[in-house]
Amino acid sequence: MPSYFSEIKPIGYQGPQGKDALAYRYYDKDRMVLGKRMEDQLRFCVAWWHSFCNVGKDIFGDGTFERSWNKASDPMEMAKLRAESAFDFFTKLGVKYYAFHDRDIAPEGETPKASLENLRAMVDVLGKYQASTGVKLLWGTANLFGNKRYMSGGGSNPDPEVFAFGAAQIKAAMDATKALNGENYVLWGGREGYETLLNTNLKQEVEQLGRLLTMVVEYKHKIGFKGAILVEPKPCEPSKHQYDFDVATLYGFLRRFGLEKEVKANIESNHATLAGHTFEHEIATAFAYDIFGSIDMNRGDPLLGWDTDQFPNSLLDTTLAMYTIMKGGGFTTGGLNFDAKVRRQSTDPVDLFHAHVGAIDLTAHALLVAEKMIQDGALEKIVKDRYQGWSGALGQDILGGKANLETLSKHVLDKNQDVRPVSGRQEYIENLLNRFLVD
Amino acid sequence: MPSYFSEIKPIGYQGPQGKDALAYRYYDKDRMVLGKRMEDQLRFCVAWWHSFCNVGKDIFGDGTFERSWNKASDPMEMAKLRAESAFDFFTKLGVKYYAFHDRDIAPEGETPKASLENLRAMVDVLGKYQASTGVKLLWGTANLFGNKRYMSGGGSNPDPEVFAFGAAQIKAAMDATKALNGENYVLWGGREGYETLLNTNLKQEVEQLGRLLTMVVEYKHKIGFKGAILVEPKPCEPSKHQYDFDVATLYGFLRRFGLEKEVKANIESNHATLAGHTFEHEIATAFAYDIFGSIDMNRGDPLLGWDTDQFPNSLLDTTLAMYTIMKGGGFTTGGLNFDAKVRRQSTDPVDLFHAHVGAIDLTAHALLVAEKMIQDGALEKIVKDRYQGWSGALGQDILGGKANLETLSKHVLDKNQDVRPVSGRQEYIENLLNRFLVD
Amino acid sequence: MPSYFSEIKPIGYQGPQGKDALAYRYYDKDRMVLGKRMEDQLRFCVAWWHSFCNVGKDIFGDGTFERSWNKASDPMEMAKLRAESAFDFFTKLGVKYYAFHDRDIAPEGETPKASLENLRAMVDVLGKYQASTGVKLLWGTANLFGNKRYMSGGGSNPDPEVFAFGAAQIKAAMDATKALNGENYVLWGGREGYETLLNTNLKQEVEQLGRLLTMVVEYKHKIGFKGAILVEPKPCEPSKHQYDFDVATLYGFLRRFGLEKEVKANIESNHATLAGHTFEHEIATAFAYDIFGSIDMNRGDPLLGWDTDQFPNSLLDTTLAMYTIMKGGGFTTGGLNFDAKVRRQSTDPVDLFHAHVGAIDLTAHALLVAEKMIQDGALEKIVKDRYQGWSGALGQDILGGKANLETLSKHVLDKNQDVRPVSGRQEYIENLLNRFLVD
Amino acid sequence: MPSYFSEIKPIGYQGPQGKDALAYRYYDKDRMVLGKRMEDQLRFCVAWWHSFCNVGKDIFGDGTFERSWNKASDPMEMAKLRAESAFDFFTKLGVKYYAFHDRDIAPEGETPKASLENLRAMVDVLGKYQASTGVKLLWGTANLFGNKRYMSGGGSNPDPEVFAFGAAQIKAAMDATKALNGENYVLWGGREGYETLLNTNLKQEVEQLGRLLTMVVEYKHKIGFKGAILVEPKPCEPSKHQYDFDVATLYGFLRRFGLEKEVKANIESNHATLAGHTFEHEIATAFAYDIFGSIDMNRGDPLLGWDTDQFPNSLLDTTLAMYTIMKGGGFTTGGLNFDAKVRRQSTDPVDLFHAHVGAIDLTAHALLVAEKMIQDGALEKIVKDRYQGWSGALGQDILGGKANLETLSKHVLDKNQDVRPVSGRQEYIENLLNRFLVD
Repeated sequence: MPSYFSEIKPIGYQGPQGKDALAYRYYDKDRMVLGKRMEDQLRFCVAWWHSFCNVGKDIFGDGTFERSWNKASDPMEMAKLRAESAFDFFTKLGVKYYAFHDRDIAPEGETPKASLENLRAMVDVLGKYQASTGVKLLWGTANLFGNKRYMSGGGSNPDPEVFAFGAAQIKAAMDATKALNGENYVLWGGREGYETLLNTNLKQEVEQLGRLLTMVVEYKHKIGFKGAILVEPKPCEPSKHQYDFDVATLYGFLRRFGLEKEVKANIESNHATLAGHTFEHEIATAFAYDIFGSIDMNRGDPLLGWDTDQFPNSLLDTTLAMYTIMKGGGFTTGGLNFDAKVRRQSTDPVDLFHAHVGAIDLTAHALLVAEKMIQDGALEKIVKDRYQGWSGALGQDILGGKANLETLSKHVLDKNQDVRPVSGRQEYIENLLNRFLVD
Repeated sequence: MPSYFSEIKPIGYQGPQGKDALAYRYYDKDRMVLGKRMEDQLRFCVAWWHSFCNVGKDIFGDGTFERSWNKASDPMEMAKLRAESAFDFFTKLGVKYYAFHDRDIAPEGETPKASLENLRAMVDVLGKYQASTGVKLLWGTANLFGNKRYMSGGGSNPDPEVFAFGAAQIKAAMDATKALNGENYVLWGGREGYETLLNTNLKQEVEQLGRLLTMVVEYKHKIGFKGAILVEPKPCEPSKHQYDFDVATLYGFLRRFGLEKEVKANIESNHATLAGHTFEHEIATAFAYDIFGSIDMNRGDPLLGWDTDQFPNSLLDTTLAMYTIMKGGGFTTGGLNFDAKVRRQSTDPVDLFHAHVGAIDLTAHALLVAEKMIQDGALEKIVKDRYQGWSGALGQDILGGKANLETLSKHVLDKNQDVRPVSGRQEYIENLLNRFLVD
Repeated sequence: MPSYFSEIKPIGYQGPQGKDALAYRYYDKDRMVLGKRMEDQLRFCVAWWHSFCNVGKDIFGDGTFERSWNKASDPMEMAKLRAESAFDFFTKLGVKYYAFHDRDIAPEGETPKASLENLRAMVDVLGKYQASTGVKLLWGTANLFGNKRYMSGGGSNPDPEVFAFGAAQIKAAMDATKALNGENYVLWGGREGYETLLNTNLKQEVEQLGRLLTMVVEYKHKIGFKGAILVEPKPCEPSKHQYDFDVATLYGFLRRFGLEKEVKANIESNHATLAGHTFEHEIATAFAYDIFGSIDMNRGDPLLGWDTDQFPNSLLDTTLAMYTIMKGGGFTTGGLNFDAKVRRQSTDPVDLFHAHVGAIDLTAHALLVAEKMIQDGALEKIVKDRYQGWSGALGQDILGGKANLETLSKHVLDKNQDVRPVSGRQEYIENLLNRFLVD
Repeated sequence: MPSYFSEIKPIGYQGPQGKDALAYRYYDKDRMVLGKRMEDQLRFCVAWWHSFCNVGKDIFGDGTFERSWNKASDPMEMAKLRAESAFDFFTKLGVKYYAFHDRDIAPEGETPKASLENLRAMVDVLGKYQASTGVKLLWGTANLFGNKRYMSGGGSNPDPEVFAFGAAQIKAAMDATKALNGENYVLWGGREGYETLLNTNLKQEVEQLGRLLTMVVEYKHKIGFKGAILVEPKPCEPSKHQYDFDVATLYGFLRRFGLEKEVKANIESNHATLAGHTFEHEIATAFAYDIFGSIDMNRGDPLLGWDTDQFPNSLLDTTLAMYTIMKGGGFTTGGLNFDAKVRRQSTDPVDLFHAHVGAIDLTAHALLVAEKMIQDGALEKIVKDRYQGWSGALGQDILGGKANLETLSKHVLDKNQDVRPVSGRQEYIENLLNRFLVD
């Protein structure tokens, strides 16, 4: 295979003392962490779109990246070059998973049929690369936001013909995902929202989305797709307001349509913060409601109000995410997708390596810290002790449904004295966390 | 009754040409609007806390308001002076409803029993004022956030004794609300959240809150309280993160505990914007999920990140809220509470009148615009036309469950052509709205 | 001239009772307002880029607009079609001014010389249209943000060759602006900031920008350009952080380089709110520091963190801006540019008309309200009365430099009593404002 | 001295392997770092108000802290108990500096004279503690925001009598600061802003503030105070908008009144982020404009819109601040004040120790990382290399004023070719930074 990254050697593990910028210092695939190989615990995934389709445009400027794989004039030829470069990249990086939108891997054709043919052809190409490299598909999805027909939504479009178009596209993307043994199928609804309520029937659009997701679940079972169906919440952008605002909103939506056992959340860090939550809050909420699926690990800039999709660089933040995931039981079908793009000024192909190597290593480091935190148990003990009253008679009566307002009122009036609050010890706990980070 | 506002005459209706600052120009109680008297349509309510307890403190400064009713040294005496001034105010303003927290109307005593006695005594006082003035209680609630015992939450406290204390307080507040013929009972959980996830068991706390709300519903039925149970979402402040983040989160929570038929939302404008939503979005969402209950009409400052609780002053924004409510069917048990406070620099009692008169008049004006918009029907027709495809065969098959991904894919591949998007006409619609506002 | 907007009749004035969606109800050009014809007072301007270059792309999607003037395959041919359509639009709309970036009106060529030739050729074309239509150039500017060479800034680039390239482009744009009798020259530095301080020499970059602006001022004088030099602040986007954050930052920058008498501010509403200010705050600050130049009148969405560049639709907000400008003395060389784009879903050419007609009419209405407010004088009197103490001996001693900490301390200790604060009457004043809006 | 913290032993240095929660692992006072003892480099300071006056109130709740030193009923008695506890705390913590507002250390009296006497009496008390403990005063300031007389501002008040009152208070606070050998005097203007522009004369208020600051500078010189005069910017809260929005705004203000050589900035981390900047941006800007003075090291919550004043806990963020300060030359008269408060749920006195010990140790750690970064030089070299073109002829001509738009245009047209942009390498640099953090 002629290499697109001929100047780059496969990224190896050198250990914490390693000096190479393009080597792992913490990501040691076979190291056992919390009962699994590190590679199996983390299930890293590269996002096709950001690394192989993105040319460095932003809303105020043209592309800045010169990518050898984007030089073909024929769209299908370019798709094949991208595939070649992508698997070359995955292999050199040593990552086992990738993820795509249908339109990332295969160009839209002149007609629906032509688009479908393009997709099928590229599925064959990708299948061969998967077989030869051992790289696997974490998830596929359908792009229902880029083409102008979807400007007012895919599933939530005011025109049922657009709904149908989107449904056909989803079917094809699910078929492709199944054909490539994808382990999940994702829906992100960037246009499933509105620009102004004045021209919008919110209630009907939510119903339409409920129908669409129901169809997806039914089709999954029909074709025997074994992966999980995931929905990725985001509050806004490109829409003024998106229906899948956050994990809690998604949960209510799933309950509304009886899908809470069938669909899980794909949680993105940057989407979490845009919605006013920490990443770990969204993860903890998903575990609390039993809909944790997968994550997109890309940081936002807390001072900017759009999706900056940056690679993670904070050990503190990444550790909080990994700790929350590991406490919740870790990944099953999901994984850790770097839905992140190099900065528009990071123009060279080598920057793709620096970005991924840094992010992988940071996450591996965070996992090791999380392991230490869990094995040490000090933090968990603090929490357990803080809630110990709930194991007592009063707590159990409340949780078990024996107590009611009257019995509790009687309890309080009989004691007839105030309750003393106990320090929450936040600063002590934050210091403790910092010890784990540096020890 | 000796008047606290002796310099203020009862606020009357003067019509649009009226020149008095303290007169209504749009709020004409008996005018029929969309099938009801304006007063019955709007159900205005004064918030006890902001107008009679608040002394103008903020986090950086002492109180600035000198209120004659706050001069008593004995807490119960002061509570009675406040009640006297409050009903004097309601009457002069010509508003039919008020709302309170238990601790607004009656001071906390040394012991739970003493607090309960204080509350009962003040219920008697208020009952007499209600009888003599005709003013009614829109809703009561229990303050589970001010006292230090609730610093880590009421229902979501790590200590079940605090839960019990809060439950006892809620029981008493529900009893008081029922005794005063309150039309709703509200729960706002300003401390029902967390400061840091590191010392928090999120899943258990949500369970606790589910238990608490279930108890409230059971007790409502037990005592035959006919009003609605309402939960008021807020994303944060004072908590770093509150569990009842917004309407959609509340809906998911209610479904989780099977309470979606029993509990509705009390939606506050300022809480909506803090959560990243417009007020009308939250209202429309509540109607879509059939949990619209009542509103707190107080604007925030879009450039500030805390609850400024200002009186509404934008006809545009207020009209969008009123239009959404009226399209949804209007209020039933709920009403329109001004959960707003005069600015800390608005130190005089007369400022309370300016604030309420302006807000009432603006809302009445907004209602009249909303009526015009509904009767004219142009806006609604635009929306209906935009979705007309959904009344056709394809739309009905999708909504009715006959279509699936396969039939839709076949439909698209058979046609084998793209769908043309249609302009959403947002600017035209916004111009149309502006015409209604000024005509 | 064959019309691009053949279905649109010239937009006429119909008065407040007018029923046509595409007619003015408030914008009556010859009506005298505060001593000038309305047209001369408002100096409306259409932005070339948003209306004639923009195709409806956003960061997640392709263009949605089909514009007949974008059909040519040759870039210069397309530039001419755009010019033809633009002047057709200006004329039908009845607006006297337009504004452009060099790259809007003429495509970049293969080489600097070719680009310069393109620009000169298009200046000739535009000059002819100006002559035949009477439409004038409010301002020109150079696009130093779109091309990848400027990805790390124009004036603030780490490479002086890029600085030189930008300087050459600015010279050409200034020459073009002068040739077309432009009344101002603008600099907006969307890339004049940084993505990360870690690779940035902030101090040097600010020096570079100081040099660039100094060169611009010198060249203005050299060529005898009579218009004003304007800088347009923005806090961020596309940059993570831009040096010209807001008006106050610009003022400090101008003082640093001794340019405060030479350069004024072009203030954009959406940039103001992104920086944490109201539009009227930025305007008032510019007047206070005597650097008010011109405005970009386009609203943002207070719940979204990017530049939505929407046409204004709030009479309240627009009135506050117009009132502040008129109190400050109105426009001199500047004007009111609609730096706004129709929504991506507003795909039809007619939407351009709805957007501009609505915005023009709203602003004209706001001007009339502002006139009423100024002529009535009630608001201004409140402010004057509030500060009346400053006309007294103590106030004059302080302002005039006679008083100092010691004399003031003696004054206070001699009186030895507290000062009583006076109500700021905010709610009363807001009600008063609302009266002006609806009367 | 009877100890308020009898259960706490003096906090000692144990080194990185230390296991005690209340011991330093990085803060080794006498260790030489970048040419100074660590203690002299960092100049840590405890904020009197947050730790000894604050009782745990917030806007929705009462105090939660029980402090033995707050038990006295006489205000002066309590002030003395606070002083006793404060110096006990400083000593046990091993911190050399503290800072106060006048009203923190001495209660306001019935009259101005009584207030002055209280202050003088407490200055004597504090002087004795300083002498006996060796603890020094980093800075003093006057509280012109808490008392209701300042509700509309101190210096920017519409009433010159309030201005005079504030001026007298500032004189007394400056006298006290000088008497206690304070090394700086600070002004923070929490009320020096407005709630609504509608009742505000912005231009006059800015003039008033200019006068006030001029008086402060004149008085400093008159009394021979050797410390620096510092202004602390903040964008808002409690004001809707404060005049000293950020460092760049302050710089423009100082230039406006010719004070840029006399006054420097006291930069707070939380204020920086509320204004839309990173802490290191504000620091770098202050160095660029030569007005860096001192810092308040307290983090905000990026998801919350108010001043949370939390102790720092991120090594990454703290390192970026320390690196920027050390690159700029470090502190001179300024220092590192923890303007931070323990959470309202951190109710115990020991929490004050955990908070400060953690923050001190984190900052010391960050300083050591910054030292490594500076000594290693790799980061600085990247920046230097990136700008190397500016050392060449073209760069020097531009910076030196030899080049102008015409010469640069000629330069570009003569070369007649494009400039190639160079990768900014952000991801690589961020990885490099992370190596320094963990090595």
